[in-house]
Amino acid sequence: MVVTRELRLNTRGRCDVRDITEEVEQVVQASGLSAGTVTLFCPGSTGGLTTIEYEAGVIADLEQVLDEIVPPDRPYRHHLRWGDDNGHSHVRAALIGPSLTIPFVDGRLTLGTWQQIVFCDFDTHPRSRRLVVQIIGE
Amino acid sequence: MVVTRELRLNTRGRCDVRDITEEVEQVVQASGLSAGTVTLFCPGSTGGLTTIEYEAGVIADLEQVLDEIVPPDRPYRHHLRWGDDNGHSHVRAALIGPSLTIPFVDGRLTLGTWQQIVFCDFDTHPRSRRLVVQIIGE
Amino acid sequence: MVVTRELRLNTRGRCDVRDITEEVEQVVQASGLSAGTVTLFCPGSTGGLTTIEYEAGVIADLEQVLDEIVPPDRPYRHHLRWGDDNGHSHVRAALIGPSLTIPFVDGRLTLGTWQQIVFCDFDTHPRSRRLVVQIIGE
Repeated sequence: MVVTRELRLNTRGRCDVRDITEEVEQVVQASGLSAGTVTLFCPGSTGGLTTIEYEAGVIADLEQVLDEIVPPDRPYRHHLRWGDDNGHSHVRAALIGPSLTIPFVDGRLTLGTWQQIVFCDFDTHPRSRRLVVQIIGE
Repeated sequence: MVVTRELRLNTRGRCDVRDITEEVEQVVQASGLSAGTVTLFCPGSTGGLTTIEYEAGVIADLEQVLDEIVPPDRPYRHHLRWGDDNGHSHVRAALIGPSLTIPFVDGRLTLGTWQQIVFCDFDTHPRSRRLVVQIIGE
Repeated sequence: MVVTRELRLNTRGRCDVRDITEEVEQVVQASGLSAGTVTLFCPGSTGGLTTIEYEAGVIADLEQVLDEIVPPDRPYRHHLRWGDDNGHSHVRAALIGPSLTIPFVDGRLTLGTWQQIVFCDFDTHPRSRRLVVQIIGE
Protein backbone atom coordinates (compact mmCIF):
# COMPACT_ATOMS: atom_id res chain seq x y z
CA MET A 1 0.00 0.00 0.00
CA VAL A 2 1.32 3.41 -1.01
CA VAL A 3 0.47 6.67 0.78
CA THR A 4 1.85 9.97 -0.51
CA ARG A 5 1.70 13.25 1.35
CA GLU A 6 3.40 16.62 1.18
CA LEU A 7 5.05 18.72 3.86
CA ARG A 8 5.26 22.45 3.37
CA LEU A 9 7.67 24.72 5.12
CA ASN A 10 9.02 28.23 4.75
CA THR A 11 12.77 28.45 5.20
CA ARG A 12 15.24 31.25 5.62
CA GLY A 13 17.70 29.64 3.17
CA ARG A 14 21.48 30.01 3.77
CA CYS A 15 21.95 26.56 5.31
CA ASP A 16 18.66 26.62 7.20
CA VAL A 17 18.54 23.18 8.85
CA ARG A 18 15.00 22.33 9.95
CA ASP A 19 13.75 19.51 12.14
CA ILE A 20 10.83 17.81 10.38
CA THR A 21 10.69 14.68 12.54
CA GLU A 22 7.34 15.39 14.14
CA GLU A 23 5.65 16.12 10.82
CA VAL A 24 6.95 12.86 9.35
CA GLU A 25 5.85 10.90 12.45
CA GLN A 26 2.37 12.36 12.04
CA VAL A 27 2.14 11.25 8.42
CA VAL A 28 3.15 7.72 9.42
CA GLN A 29 0.62 7.59 12.25
CA ALA A 30 -2.19 9.02 10.12
CA SER A 31 -1.54 6.38 7.45
CA GLY A 32 -2.65 3.66 9.83
CA LEU A 33 0.11 1.42 8.46
CA SER A 34 2.08 -0.70 10.90
CA ALA A 35 5.36 -1.50 9.15
CA GLY A 36 7.13 -0.18 6.09
CA THR A 37 9.43 2.45 4.70
CA VAL A 38 9.07 6.21 4.54
CA THR A 39 10.80 7.89 1.63
CA LEU A 40 11.40 11.61 1.96
CA PHE A 41 12.28 13.56 -1.14
CA CYS A 42 13.09 17.18 -1.88
CA PRO A 43 11.86 18.28 -5.30
CA GLY A 44 14.50 20.88 -6.09
CA SER A 45 18.26 20.96 -6.51
CA THR A 46 19.29 23.22 -3.63
CA GLY A 47 17.96 21.24 -0.66
CA GLY A 48 19.08 18.06 1.09
CA LEU A 49 17.76 15.53 3.60
CA THR A 50 19.67 13.71 6.32
CA THR A 51 19.50 13.00 10.05
CA ILE A 52 21.40 14.70 12.87
CA GLU A 53 21.10 15.36 16.58
CA TYR A 54 19.05 18.54 16.41
CA GLU A 55 21.11 20.69 18.73
CA ALA A 56 22.29 24.21 17.84
CA GLY A 57 25.96 23.40 18.40
CA VAL A 58 26.20 20.48 16.02
CA ILE A 59 24.05 22.26 13.42
CA ALA A 60 26.61 25.10 13.50
CA ASP A 61 29.41 22.52 13.22
CA LEU A 62 27.80 21.02 10.12
CA GLU A 63 27.45 24.48 8.60
CA GLN A 64 31.11 25.27 9.35
CA VAL A 65 32.32 22.10 7.62
CA LEU A 66 30.12 22.88 4.60
CA ASP A 67 31.44 26.46 4.56
CA GLU A 68 34.95 25.02 4.41
CA ILE A 69 34.49 22.33 1.79
CA VAL A 70 31.89 24.16 -0.35
CA PRO A 71 32.52 27.85 0.39
CA PRO A 72 29.67 30.26 -0.33
CA ASP A 73 31.86 33.26 -1.11
CA ARG A 74 33.88 32.37 -4.17
CA PRO A 75 33.14 32.21 -7.89
CA TYR A 76 31.18 29.25 -9.23
CA ARG A 77 30.79 28.51 -12.91
CA HIS A 78 27.06 28.12 -12.34
CA HIS A 79 26.87 31.88 -11.74
CA LEU A 80 28.05 32.58 -15.27
CA ARG A 81 25.10 30.70 -16.71
CA TRP A 82 22.10 32.38 -15.13
CA GLY A 83 23.59 35.19 -13.06
CA ASP A 84 22.72 33.07 -10.01
CA ASP A 85 24.57 33.31 -6.71
CA ASN A 86 23.85 29.79 -5.49
CA GLY A 87 26.48 27.54 -7.07
CA HIS A 88 27.54 26.35 -3.63
CA SER A 89 23.89 25.55 -2.79
CA HIS A 90 23.67 23.15 -5.72
CA VAL A 91 26.95 21.42 -4.90
CA ARG A 92 25.99 20.98 -1.23
CA ALA A 93 22.60 19.57 -2.18
CA ALA A 94 24.23 17.05 -4.53
CA LEU A 95 26.62 15.95 -1.76
CA ILE A 96 24.01 15.57 1.00
CA GLY A 97 21.47 14.07 -1.38
CA PRO A 98 17.78 14.79 -2.03
CA SER A 99 16.29 11.67 -0.47
CA LEU A 100 16.14 9.74 2.77
CA THR A 101 14.52 6.40 3.57
CA ILE A 102 13.54 5.38 7.08
CA PRO A 103 11.90 2.13 8.17
CA PHE A 104 8.97 2.20 10.61
CA VAL A 105 7.78 -0.63 12.82
CA ASP A 106 4.63 -0.78 14.96
CA GLY A 107 3.72 2.60 13.48
CA ARG A 108 6.89 4.29 14.76
CA LEU A 109 9.99 5.52 12.94
CA THR A 110 13.11 3.55 13.88
CA LEU A 111 15.08 6.71 14.74
CA GLY A 112 17.55 6.81 17.61
CA THR A 113 16.75 8.85 20.68
CA TRP A 114 19.02 11.74 19.73
CA GLN A 115 18.42 11.53 15.99
CA GLN A 116 16.16 13.90 14.11
CA ILE A 117 15.17 14.14 10.45
CA VAL A 118 16.35 17.42 8.95
CA PHE A 119 15.71 19.27 5.75
CA CYS A 120 18.65 21.52 4.83
CA ASP A 121 17.81 24.50 2.67
CA PHE A 122 21.09 25.47 1.05
CA ASP A 123 19.64 28.13 -1.23
CA THR A 124 20.66 31.75 -0.79
CA HIS A 125 17.27 33.21 -0.03
CA PRO A 126 14.06 32.27 1.83
CA ARG A 127 12.08 29.58 0.07
CA SER A 128 8.63 28.10 0.30
CA ARG A 129 9.41 24.38 0.15
CA ARG A 130 7.35 21.31 -0.60
CA LEU A 131 8.72 17.93 0.47
CA VAL A 132 7.32 14.58 -0.61
CA VAL A 133 6.63 11.97 2.08
CA GLN A 134 5.82 8.59 0.64
CA ILE A 135 5.03 5.52 2.70
CA ILE A 136 5.04 1.97 1.41
CA GLY A 137 3.93 -0.59 3.92
CA GLU A 138 1.27 -2.83 5.33
CA MET B 1 4.25 -4.94 -7.10
CA VAL B 2 7.96 -4.97 -7.94
CA VAL B 3 9.38 -4.15 -11.38
CA THR B 4 13.13 -4.37 -11.99
CA ARG B 5 14.91 -3.05 -15.07
CA GLU B 6 18.43 -2.18 -16.06
CA LEU B 7 19.88 0.91 -17.69
CA ARG B 8 23.07 0.60 -19.66
CA LEU B 9 25.40 3.44 -20.47
CA ASN B 10 28.94 3.92 -21.68
CA THR B 11 30.81 6.58 -19.76
CA ARG B 12 34.09 8.39 -20.23
CA GLY B 13 34.99 8.00 -16.52
CA ARG B 14 36.96 10.79 -14.76
CA CYS B 15 33.93 12.34 -13.06
CA ASP B 16 31.61 11.82 -16.00
CA VAL B 17 28.25 13.10 -14.74
CA ARG B 18 25.39 11.79 -16.88
CA ASP B 19 21.74 12.79 -16.94
CA ILE B 20 19.62 9.61 -16.78
CA THR B 21 16.29 11.29 -15.94
CA GLU B 22 14.56 10.46 -19.21
CA GLU B 23 15.55 6.79 -19.07
CA VAL B 24 14.20 6.49 -15.52
CA GLU B 25 10.96 8.27 -16.46
CA GLN B 26 10.50 5.79 -19.29
CA VAL B 27 10.90 2.81 -16.96
CA VAL B 28 8.27 4.29 -14.63
CA GLN B 29 5.84 4.94 -17.45
CA ALA B 30 6.35 1.52 -19.02
CA SER B 31 5.63 -0.15 -15.66
CA GLY B 32 2.04 1.09 -15.79
CA LEU B 33 2.21 1.75 -12.04
CA SER B 34 0.64 4.90 -10.71
CA ALA B 35 2.33 5.57 -7.36
CA GLY B 36 5.39 4.24 -5.62
CA THR B 37 9.12 4.53 -5.20
CA VAL B 38 11.92 4.12 -7.71
CA THR B 39 15.21 2.86 -6.30
CA LEU B 40 18.26 3.44 -8.45
CA PHE B 41 21.39 1.51 -7.61
CA CYS B 42 24.90 1.38 -9.03
CA PRO B 43 26.45 -2.10 -8.81
CA GLY B 44 30.09 -1.12 -8.46
CA SER B 45 32.20 0.85 -6.04
CA THR B 46 33.38 3.73 -8.24
CA GLY B 47 30.05 5.29 -9.22
CA GLY B 48 27.46 7.39 -7.41
CA LEU B 49 23.89 8.59 -7.84
CA THR B 50 22.40 11.94 -6.86
CA THR B 51 20.37 14.78 -8.33
CA ILE B 52 21.57 18.14 -9.61
CA GLU B 53 20.54 20.87 -12.03
CA TYR B 54 22.02 19.43 -15.17
CA GLU B 55 23.87 22.49 -16.41
CA ALA B 56 27.52 22.45 -17.47
CA GLY B 57 28.54 25.18 -15.02
CA VAL B 58 27.28 23.49 -11.88
CA ILE B 59 28.57 20.11 -13.04
CA ALA B 60 32.04 21.70 -13.30
CA ASP B 61 31.55 23.24 -9.85
CA LEU B 62 30.74 19.82 -8.38
CA GLU B 63 33.83 18.37 -10.01
CA GLN B 64 35.99 21.20 -8.66
CA VAL B 65 34.79 20.62 -5.10
CA LEU B 66 35.44 16.89 -5.44
CA ASP B 67 38.91 17.62 -6.87
CA GLU B 68 39.60 19.68 -3.76
CA ILE B 69 38.27 17.37 -1.08
CA VAL B 70 39.19 14.06 -2.77
CA PRO B 71 42.11 14.98 -5.06
CA PRO B 72 42.80 12.62 -7.98
CA ASP B 73 46.54 13.31 -8.14
CA ARG B 74 48.01 12.16 -4.87
CA PRO B 75 48.94 8.78 -3.38
CA TYR B 76 46.17 6.54 -2.09
CA ARG B 77 46.77 3.41 -0.08
CA HIS B 78 44.37 1.58 -2.37
CA HIS B 79 46.99 1.89 -5.14
CA LEU B 80 49.44 -0.18 -3.14
CA ARG B 81 47.06 -3.12 -3.06
CA TRP B 82 46.25 -3.73 -6.69
CA GLY B 83 48.40 -1.25 -8.57
CA ASP B 84 45.18 0.65 -9.24
CA ASP B 85 45.05 4.39 -9.87
CA ASN B 86 41.49 4.97 -8.69
CA GLY B 87 41.65 5.37 -4.91
CA HIS B 88 39.95 8.76 -5.20
CA SER B 89 37.19 7.19 -7.31
CA HIS B 90 36.31 4.77 -4.51
CA VAL B 91 36.30 7.47 -1.84
CA ARG B 92 34.10 9.77 -3.94
CA ALA B 93 31.65 6.96 -4.63
CA ALA B 94 31.40 6.14 -0.91
CA LEU B 95 30.70 9.81 -0.12
CA ILE B 96 28.07 10.38 -2.80
CA GLY B 97 26.50 6.97 -2.25
CA PRO B 98 25.45 4.18 -4.62
CA SER B 99 21.69 4.54 -4.33
CA LEU B 100 18.89 7.04 -4.78
CA THR B 101 15.18 6.72 -4.04
CA ILE B 102 12.56 8.89 -5.72
CA PRO B 103 8.80 8.77 -5.20
CA PHE B 104 6.47 8.89 -8.20
CA VAL B 105 2.83 9.94 -8.22
CA ASP B 106 0.33 9.68 -11.10
CA GLY B 107 3.05 7.90 -13.05
CA ARG B 108 5.48 10.82 -12.80
CA LEU B 109 8.67 11.30 -10.80
CA THR B 110 8.35 13.99 -8.13
CA LEU B 111 11.46 15.84 -9.35
CA GLY B 112 11.70 19.62 -9.31
CA THR B 113 11.72 21.52 -12.57
CA TRP B 114 15.48 22.12 -12.54
CA GLN B 115 16.44 18.83 -10.95
CA GLN B 116 17.85 15.92 -12.89
CA ILE B 117 18.91 12.41 -11.87
CA VAL B 118 22.61 11.90 -12.49
CA PHE B 119 24.96 8.96 -12.47
CA CYS B 120 28.52 10.01 -11.66
CA ASP B 121 31.24 7.75 -12.98
CA PHE B 122 34.26 8.48 -10.82
CA ASP B 123 36.45 5.75 -12.26
CA THR B 124 39.62 6.68 -14.13
CA HIS B 125 38.77 5.16 -17.48
CA PRO B 126 35.75 4.67 -19.74
CA ARG B 127 33.31 2.10 -18.39
CA SER B 128 30.34 0.19 -19.66
CA ARG B 129 27.88 0.59 -16.78
CA ARG B 130 24.76 -1.22 -15.75
CA LEU B 131 22.40 0.53 -13.32
CA VAL B 132 19.51 -1.15 -11.53
CA VAL B 133 16.12 0.59 -11.61
CA GLN B 134 13.62 -1.00 -9.28
CA ILE B 135 10.05 0.19 -8.83
CA ILE B 136 7.79 -0.76 -5.95
CA GLY B 137 4.29 0.57 -6.25
CA GLU B 138 0.67 0.06 -7.12
CA MET C 1 5.23 -7.84 2.03
CA VAL C 2 7.38 -6.22 4.72
CA VAL C 3 10.04 -8.07 6.75
CA THR C 4 12.00 -6.24 9.45
CA ARG C 5 15.06 -7.58 11.20
CA GLU C 6 17.90 -6.20 13.28
CA LEU C 7 21.63 -6.64 13.01
CA ARG C 8 23.75 -6.23 16.11
CA LEU C 9 27.43 -5.49 16.13
CA ASN C 10 30.03 -4.25 18.56
CA THR C 11 32.32 -1.63 17.08
CA ARG C 12 35.55 -0.01 18.15
CA GLY C 13 34.30 3.46 17.16
CA ARG C 14 36.78 6.03 15.73
CA CYS C 15 35.84 5.47 12.10
CA ASP C 16 35.37 1.73 12.44
CA VAL C 17 34.19 0.64 8.98
CA ARG C 18 32.56 -2.78 9.11
CA ASP C 19 31.52 -5.09 6.31
CA ILE C 20 27.92 -6.23 6.94
CA THR C 21 27.24 -7.65 3.47
CA GLU C 22 26.97 -11.26 4.52
CA GLU C 23 24.56 -10.51 7.36
CA VAL C 24 22.31 -8.52 5.00
CA GLU C 25 22.42 -11.30 2.37
CA GLN C 26 21.32 -13.77 5.03
CA VAL C 27 18.33 -11.64 6.00
CA VAL C 28 17.28 -11.44 2.36
CA GLN C 29 17.63 -15.18 1.85
CA ALA C 30 15.82 -16.05 5.06
CA SER C 31 12.90 -13.82 4.04
CA GLY C 32 12.11 -16.14 1.15
CA LEU C 33 11.29 -13.09 -0.98
CA SER C 34 12.44 -13.06 -4.58
CA ALA C 35 12.54 -9.40 -5.61
CA GLY C 36 12.39 -6.12 -3.75
CA THR C 37 14.33 -3.50 -1.88
CA VAL C 38 16.37 -3.75 1.30
CA THR C 39 16.50 -0.59 3.39
CA LEU C 40 19.31 -0.39 5.94
CA PHE C 41 19.06 2.22 8.64
CA CYS C 42 21.26 3.26 11.55
CA PRO C 43 19.24 4.43 14.57
CA GLY C 44 21.68 6.95 15.99
CA SER C 45 23.36 10.13 14.84
CA THR C 46 27.03 9.08 14.82
CA GLY C 47 26.94 6.21 12.30
CA GLY C 48 26.59 6.02 8.53
CA LEU C 49 25.90 3.47 5.82
CA THR C 50 27.38 3.27 2.34
CA THR C 51 29.13 0.81 0.03
CA ILE C 52 32.83 0.49 -0.73
CA GLU C 53 35.35 -2.08 -1.90
CA TYR C 54 36.16 -3.63 1.45
CA GLU C 55 39.94 -3.50 1.24
CA ALA C 56 42.16 -2.09 3.99
CA GLY C 57 43.86 0.43 1.69
CA VAL C 58 40.72 2.15 0.46
CA ILE C 59 39.17 2.07 3.95
CA ALA C 60 42.25 3.97 5.17
CA ASP C 61 41.89 6.37 2.22
CA LEU C 62 38.27 7.09 3.17
CA GLU C 63 39.31 7.73 6.75
CA GLN C 64 42.09 10.08 5.63
CA VAL C 65 39.70 12.17 3.53
CA LEU C 66 37.24 12.33 6.44
CA ASP C 67 40.08 13.34 8.78
CA GLU C 68 40.87 16.18 6.38
CA ILE C 69 37.37 17.51 5.73
CA VAL C 70 35.92 16.80 9.19
CA PRO C 71 38.95 16.77 11.51
CA PRO C 72 38.58 14.96 14.83
CA ASP C 73 41.05 17.12 16.72
CA ARG C 74 39.67 20.62 16.74
CA PRO C 75 36.93 22.40 18.72
CA TYR C 76 33.31 21.76 17.81
CA ARG C 77 30.41 23.77 19.16
CA HIS C 78 28.66 20.51 19.97
CA HIS C 79 31.25 19.92 22.71
CA LEU C 80 30.14 23.05 24.55
CA ARG C 81 26.62 21.69 24.91
CA TRP C 82 27.13 18.33 26.57
CA GLY C 83 30.85 18.15 27.22
CA ASP C 84 30.94 15.59 24.39
CA ASP C 85 34.00 14.96 22.28
CA ASN C 86 32.23 13.68 19.18
CA GLY C 87 31.21 16.76 17.18
CA HIS C 88 33.09 15.43 14.16
CA SER C 89 31.28 12.08 14.50
CA HIS C 90 27.91 13.80 14.12
CA VAL C 91 28.98 15.85 11.12
CA ARG C 92 30.46 12.81 9.36
CA ALA C 93 27.31 10.80 9.98
CA ALA C 94 25.15 13.59 8.53
CA LEU C 95 27.36 13.72 5.41
CA ILE C 96 27.48 9.96 4.75
CA GLY C 97 23.84 9.49 5.69
CA PRO C 98 22.04 7.03 7.97
CA SER C 99 20.32 4.92 5.32
CA LEU C 100 21.02 2.82 2.27
CA THR C 101 18.64 1.11 -0.14
CA ILE C 102 19.65 -1.84 -2.28
CA PRO C 103 17.47 -3.77 -4.73
CA PHE C 104 17.53 -7.56 -4.76
CA VAL C 105 16.51 -9.84 -7.63
CA ASP C 106 16.14 -13.62 -7.57
CA GLY C 107 16.87 -13.47 -3.86
CA ARG C 108 20.27 -11.82 -4.35
CA LEU C 109 21.48 -8.29 -3.68
CA THR C 110 22.41 -6.42 -6.86
CA LEU C 111 25.87 -5.48 -5.55
CA GLY C 112 28.91 -5.36 -7.80
CA THR C 113 31.63 -7.96 -7.39
CA TRP C 114 33.98 -5.63 -5.50
CA GLN C 115 31.29 -3.73 -3.63
CA GLN C 116 30.47 -4.35 0.02
CA ILE C 117 27.90 -2.83 2.36
CA VAL C 118 29.60 -1.04 5.23
CA PHE C 119 28.48 0.46 8.49
CA CYS C 120 30.78 3.28 9.60
CA ASP C 121 30.88 3.95 13.31
CA PHE C 122 32.15 7.51 13.64
CA ASP C 123 31.68 7.76 17.39
CA THR C 124 34.68 8.23 19.64
CA HIS C 125 34.35 5.09 21.71
CA PRO C 126 33.30 1.46 21.27
CA ARG C 127 29.57 1.04 20.76
CA SER C 128 27.08 -1.75 20.78
CA ARG C 129 25.07 -1.02 17.63
CA ARG C 130 21.70 -2.08 16.36
CA LEU C 131 20.95 -1.65 12.65
CA VAL C 132 17.52 -2.00 11.07
CA VAL C 133 17.20 -4.17 7.96
CA GLN C 134 13.83 -3.86 6.31
CA ILE C 135 12.80 -5.71 3.19
CA ILE C 136 9.83 -4.83 1.01
CA GLY C 137 9.23 -7.24 -1.81
CA GLU C 138 7.35 -10.15 -3.24
